[in-house]
Amino acid sequence: MTKVIQPGAMIGIIGAGQLGKMLAQSAQKMGYKVAMYDPNPTSCGFAVAHSTTVADFTDREALLNFVQSVDVVTYEFENIDGDLLKELESESYLPQGTDLLLNSQDRIKEKKWLNQQGIPTTDFAEVNTWTELTIALKLINLPAILKTTRFGYDGKGQVFLKDQADLEAKQSDIEALLEEQSLILEAFCDFKYEVSVIVSQDLYGNIEIFPISQNQHINGVLYSSIVGANYSEDLTDQIYDIAEKIAKAGKLIGVCGIEFFITEDEEVFVNEIAPRPHNTGHYTLEATNVSQFDQHILGITGRSLINIRLFEPGLMINILGQHLPYVEKVSQQYPEAIYHIYDKGEAKKQRKMGHFTLTKPDYNQLETMLYQSTSLKAWQDLF
Amino acid sequence: MTKVIQPGAMIGIIGAGQLGKMLAQSAQKMGYKVAMYDPNPTSCGFAVAHSTTVADFTDREALLNFVQSVDVVTYEFENIDGDLLKELESESYLPQGTDLLLNSQDRIKEKKWLNQQGIPTTDFAEVNTWTELTIALKLINLPAILKTTRFGYDGKGQVFLKDQADLEAKQSDIEALLEEQSLILEAFCDFKYEVSVIVSQDLYGNIEIFPISQNQHINGVLYSSIVGANYSEDLTDQIYDIAEKIAKAGKLIGVCGIEFFITEDEEVFVNEIAPRPHNTGHYTLEATNVSQFDQHILGITGRSLINIRLFEPGLMINILGQHLPYVEKVSQQYPEAIYHIYDKGEAKKQRKMGHFTLTKPDYNQLETMLYQSTSLKAWQDLF
Repeated sequence: MTKVIQPGAMIGIIGAGQLGKMLAQSAQKMGYKVAMYDPNPTSCGFAVAHSTTVADFTDREALLNFVQSVDVVTYEFENIDGDLLKELESESYLPQGTDLLLNSQDRIKEKKWLNQQGIPTTDFAEVNTWTELTIALKLINLPAILKTTRFGYDGKGQVFLKDQADLEAKQSDIEALLEEQSLILEAFCDFKYEVSVIVSQDLYGNIEIFPISQNQHINGVLYSSIVGANYSEDLTDQIYDIAEKIAKAGKLIGVCGIEFFITEDEEVFVNEIAPRPHNTGHYTLEATNVSQFDQHILGITGRSLINIRLFEPGLMINILGQHLPYVEKVSQQYPEAIYHIYDKGEAKKQRKMGHFTLTKPDYNQLETMLYQSTSLKAWQDLF
Repeated sequence: MTKVIQPGAMIGIIGAGQLGKMLAQSAQKMGYKVAMYDPNPTSCGFAVAHSTTVADFTDREALLNFVQSVDVVTYEFENIDGDLLKELESESYLPQGTDLLLNSQDRIKEKKWLNQQGIPTTDFAEVNTWTELTIALKLINLPAILKTTRFGYDGKGQVFLKDQADLEAKQSDIEALLEEQSLILEAFCDFKYEVSVIVSQDLYGNIEIFPISQNQHINGVLYSSIVGANYSEDLTDQIYDIAEKIAKAGKLIGVCGIEFFITEDEEVFVNEIAPRPHNTGHYTLEATNVSQFDQHILGITGRSLINIRLFEPGLMINILGQHLPYVEKVSQQYPEAIYHIYDKGEAKKQRKMGHFTLTKPDYNQLETMLYQSTSLKAWQDLF
């Protein structure tokens, strides 16, 4: 169905965190009204919304009322129950769909689905008991990572297993996780670096892929994304081919973030996918001619995507709770950066409170800054 | 006083039209809260504000309450009474100041003030009666334009006088205007083209000037702004010198739009100034590394301005009420444009309802589009 949602219509966004806020700002720029749904009454997106609903993501009645009260629905929050999602899809207009989301909510399902599409991932095995873990470790060599299959984000619910001694030392942590839910044992990928792309697709089958961003995670949380490097044609092709496959097979409408591991030999493995705007795409608010948020709104409102051009190489740095006292100092050092502060209230440690983006005509300047600036080094040490 | 307003603080914006809305979106991106004041309860800015006040711009008590309830005040609306403005300035924190506004609210005062700074304007004379008009016409040759000295915008309150016969034919219109308020007779400037710049200044005396935009007005309303042409060094210097003079003499904090007439011989005359974000600066949301709205918020919150770079040549086209039915058609022809729809309610004829901006690596492509595209020609004909 190709349905064009005209300005003036109400877009309903499920989830009113920073992704919801930035989506709302794009939608409002284009003349849409925005209704937002989140269980947290102080969600930062609420401050900019036309109307707000405070209710749990598991509250079937509230969610159904919400989606039926708007002209088109989208979500930035991923952990909605699958059955409920299917019901939302049948009871409202949700062009973003649920295929990609249902396939990415569970790490095992996600990897299986990717492999079915011919997309390489690291080796993995499902683990529900200590015995299963012992068997899995016969197939997957250490080092490896044990992760919860669902609801993990920013490094939460993960145990790194370096060697046999590590396994024994962490037994009680692992058993605690096993009591909660299924785990996945993933082979540790000795990657040279991590990259991501944001892929977008509209109702007319146009696929647009944002530039490749190289990312640094520290303790499971994104620290930096840098964009504008020259990657080999072969690597670029592999990444773009995978992104296109995922968009097509997943019937993507709007945007989806895809994270990759790249090895020394330029082997490419998909780490994970997130069928919504992604933290590693925040640089698009400044460095490209169209942002991931604009592109998502264009997609779900049935308009054509915009051809993407990188204006200048860009560097995005996340601001966590513990960084807030230092924002003013770092902004004096980088006054040319654009600062995004989400206005999320309490500045908890490790909580994403904002980000800043620098663009430069010369990529090397940004790279030097990222790897050699003493103030960014201090920033990084706070992660 | 150099006072830094930290994110989380409340910015009060007087005026909640599209300029207020776009200012609010910049402020919210940076983590500020936004309170807005406007007599029109359906103002488009209100939809994105944290809190709203509906009251008249002449309501002293409401305005004073409003400005005292926020951490910093700014205005996008220009026609606030001078005495009231002075009171607001003494009773609240209004870094934007009132000097430039007080000097630009009245066309005669504005031209006198500009001339005092050594800045050239076209010849002018004050006209309060028909007799004064007769005398003024001895000093200023026809063709000339009679304008109300205050509250005129988008070509309203203006009478063009081509020749003596025109004067006689329009006598009743002129007498009607004279009954309302003082008029100014301005020599008609036979300009080759019109340009503008947005100049910005921060509390630390840094002045940043956005690129020169060439503008087309039709029936007094801005149709297009195009940016990225090569102007002679001499012309650029003249324009930038004047902009700097105005920023300094006017004690500007934030941004100010300045419109110029450029003659065949590259003589430069200032047409008018607007001490706030300006329609001819909307292209900065896409084509430069920082927008006029961001720069204004940085200025008034006591932060340093960002050095301005043009990413790509840009072309902005206004969308008036009568264009709205054709937006979808033109957007199919220019899908790479970013559309801003203000969500202002009723689409009255000549009312600014939105704009769209195209950027291209090559200026000539944009120029060709502006002057040769049949769909833009049709768009222009609707003005």
